Amino acid sequence: MHSERIQFQNYEEKVISAHEASLFFKDKMTVGTSGFTKAGDSKAVLPAFAERAKEEEIAITLITGASLGHTTDADLAQNNALYKRMPFQVDPTLRKKINDGSILFVDQHLSETVELLENKHLPKMDLAVLEAAYIDENGNIIPTTSVGNSVTFAHLAEKIIIEINLSIPMNFKGIHDIYLPEPYPNRKPLDITASSERIGQDFISIDPQKVIGVVFTEIPDSPAQVVAPDEKTTAIAGHLLAFFEKEIADGRLTKSLLPLQAGIGKVANAVMSGLGKGDFENLEMYSEVLQDSTFELIDSGKMNFASASSLTVSQNCYAHILNNFELYKDKILLRPQQISNSAEVIRRLGIIAINTAIEFDIYGNVNSTHLGGTKMMNGIGGSGDFARNAYLSIFVTQSASKEDNAISHVLPMVSHVDHTEHDVDILVTDQGLADLRGLAPRERAQVIINNCVHPDYKETLQHYFERASERGGHTPHILEEAFAMHTRFNQTGTMKELVLEELA
Amino acid sequence: MHSERIQFQNYEEKVISAHEASLFFKDKMTVGTSGFTKAGDSKAVLPAFAERAKEEEIAITLITGASLGHTTDADLAQNNALYKRMPFQVDPTLRKKINDGSILFVDQHLSETVELLENKHLPKMDLAVLEAAYIDENGNIIPTTSVGNSVTFAHLAEKIIIEINLSIPMNFKGIHDIYLPEPYPNRKPLDITASSERIGQDFISIDPQKVIGVVFTEIPDSPAQVVAPDEKTTAIAGHLLAFFEKEIADGRLTKSLLPLQAGIGKVANAVMSGLGKGDFENLEMYSEVLQDSTFELIDSGKMNFASASSLTVSQNCYAHILNNFELYKDKILLRPQQISNSAEVIRRLGIIAINTAIEFDIYGNVNSTHLGGTKMMNGIGGSGDFARNAYLSIFVTQSASKEDNAISHVLPMVSHVDHTEHDVDILVTDQGLADLRGLAPRERAQVIINNCVHPDYKETLQHYFERASERGGHTPHILEEAFAMHTRFNQTGTMKELVLEELA
Repeated sequence: MHSERIQFQNYEEKVISAHEASLFFKDKMTVGTSGFTKAGDSKAVLPAFAERAKEEEIAITLITGASLGHTTDADLAQNNALYKRMPFQVDPTLRKKINDGSILFVDQHLSETVELLENKHLPKMDLAVLEAAYIDENGNIIPTTSVGNSVTFAHLAEKIIIEINLSIPMNFKGIHDIYLPEPYPNRKPLDITASSERIGQDFISIDPQKVIGVVFTEIPDSPAQVVAPDEKTTAIAGHLLAFFEKEIADGRLTKSLLPLQAGIGKVANAVMSGLGKGDFENLEMYSEVLQDSTFELIDSGKMNFASASSLTVSQNCYAHILNNFELYKDKILLRPQQISNSAEVIRRLGIIAINTAIEFDIYGNVNSTHLGGTKMMNGIGGSGDFARNAYLSIFVTQSASKEDNAISHVLPMVSHVDHTEHDVDILVTDQGLADLRGLAPRERAQVIINNCVHPDYKETLQHYFERASERGGHTPHILEEAFAMHTRFNQTGTMKELVLEELA
Repeated sequence: MHSERIQFQNYEEKVISAHEASLFFKDKMTVGTSGFTKAGDSKAVLPAFAERAKEEEIAITLITGASLGHTTDADLAQNNALYKRMPFQVDPTLRKKINDGSILFVDQHLSETVELLENKHLPKMDLAVLEAAYIDENGNIIPTTSVGNSVTFAHLAEKIIIEINLSIPMNFKGIHDIYLPEPYPNRKPLDITASSERIGQDFISIDPQKVIGVVFTEIPDSPAQVVAPDEKTTAIAGHLLAFFEKEIADGRLTKSLLPLQAGIGKVANAVMSGLGKGDFENLEMYSEVLQDSTFELIDSGKMNFASASSLTVSQNCYAHILNNFELYKDKILLRPQQISNSAEVIRRLGIIAINTAIEFDIYGNVNSTHLGGTKMMNGIGGSGDFARNAYLSIFVTQSASKEDNAISHVLPMVSHVDHTEHDVDILVTDQGLADLRGLAPRERAQVIINNCVHPDYKETLQHYFERASERGGHTPHILEEAFAMHTRFNQTGTMKELVLEELA
């Protein structure tokens, strides 16, 4: 059965069903599974464990690369199978349980989870479940559409279950660059000086002694939902492309820019697609995720190479990639997220990082995780890895949202800080772009208010800034009012001042 | 005159007075000067410029390594000679002008200033003033007690003034490791795999065409003020040393720990001195600043090597170092702050970073710059460079201060965020230590309240946390009350609740 998928003889007797594999899960275990932004996740064993947890009282600490696909996180959460979850998620059901305090969530920089594991700053990993295209003749595995944290999970877990996904072609071998840093104090430089540079093997090493089961599945990754650009995202992309053109005109960048990182979402996709229309050439990506726009740019001849930790594309794009795989094979690399998001490499290559904010404030601090300062949306993901060390750290968001623009996404003070003013160079909304480079806080505030704020909120923010400035301070604030727009929204459903009430 | 100090003939005719040198300063210039934590700063030319500005309306953008010594920053500020200042300062007069908005200050990660300059994200540098021990036979300079940002300033500035300090012995040559990263996209790995590893030259390259003046001075560095440990700092050091001992006992660290970084201040000094008494061996530092405690540890045989960007010690310690220079010469290295504070090297070596907080909150966010959310104290300095990429990121502060403990340094929400919860592993006050590794926000809050909060504020913070948690959220907060302790202090002079008033 599928002999080309298990080329290491010893493993053949280890083939079990997903349900049988799920029986290896014990209460309070720490389990690591493959999967990064819906790509390369466990589609058989984790769901079978979720099913088992319907009937039994059993909960684990689940560590992944990033978000899982299908309904796995929802099912696990719904069936109370999660005690603690890290480092990222995007699932509404899980999110609800995180926010009501019934599931503990540790929101981490995506590069850091395996550092903490290797340093024993997190509990010992009992079990790893890793998706593979196949098992090679030495018992090692060829990963699938993501690498995520699987290399370290394989290294540290006491036991390993391999989940072979038959929907992944055998010729996926070769698109992965697998490297595991040496333990302290013997670490070496990560010798990547270009997006296309390889430093490792094309398989994940597996100790055969650890393998307790091999499970087959044919379920493909959940496809990415690509949303067409709307008026706002088109405006944001337009401002950013004009900025790049000006940087080129001013001699700070060439038409090849510098390697790009783009977060997931429609704004990032709109910007990347926009690059295909502009006067750019020989582009590269050094990012976390390859999306549809990456392949559009490769197809149009604008992009030479793209490195990331996962391949998260729409169904059509995925079919197109598989049908033309030999065309793309030498133009992409998937790496461990510790490497795709490495501070060292990001600084060395000089990444242009484009990430999405939930809100930012007039001094340039960014909240990318918490609604109203309290409710977790998804997690910080890799945005901090990139923003902190980028050549240019760019954050984008809409200036206002909801009916009658009830929410302003630019505030006097963000209700939660994920990226401090130190790590933010450029802010963009549909209204315009604020170039904060070299500016002191009071200068930043005026540029942000002038360029990024929705007209409905300009006066309010200008008024706040002026009154705060009169009181003094390097970063002027009126602490009593810093969150007034947030609290007004909680009380009235809009951040706008209701003039009559205020006068009463 | 001082022929051993100017070994490059062409420069002899360039010797001028400090006043003459100050005449090269023009209004609105961007000037870079040597100097890092009071070490190796300009003691003749910058003060002469400050003097000149008494009589003339002239102001510059001044970029340094970090803080300057003597009264230079105060004199410049007092005489309105500064339009903009970056990346760090510690001077009360300058601070006052920053906070009243009359001097623009850009608070930067100390590793980043030269990145921004090289990338042309800051204005072109017109002039550099660099302290040197001497000028070698090729016209290059041997730096003094700091390297700071001088390498890049020398590289980028249009004109250079060299300030030769005769108080620095000629045998300082050899303690510097000077390296300038290649421009994008040709950067190479920084090949430092141990604190003691050299990657560069022992001099700063100077283009003789740029040199417009050589000035002599004999003024030594301002000495560091070493404050004896008090009850609180001793308690903090004790908690931290006990923690290190436990980490060793648990097998996560050895008696050599990992390379140490310690911010400036009495707590850091107390901790470092404490290491001398404990059962530690073969310690190393990879830090920004070498302080008295570094040399105590070298003297006691506990420390093998110390790398930093500056040497900032007391008068006695400095005399001791000079008298025994050959003993220390192969045990210390001074590097550009871009290298001493490099994310790449910090992560690779696995630094234990110990920095000081002004305040932290119950979820582990740290404010290390702003009093009451508005007033700049000193600047973020290198704390972010280290905290973000450290093996262990530790922040220390006192639990409460002022008469009757009117100020709690642990708050519901910090009034300014410099280090997010993601970048903080361990918090220590005189009350105890909170180990936040692997904890979700609600877990962190309880550990911090239990271990770090002053008894006078425990009930208040517990009450806040419980009421916020009832409202829900991943990071529970009551935005209306998040700054109540800060605003109460502003209004009443104490963060404590005045029960009678509250009831009225």
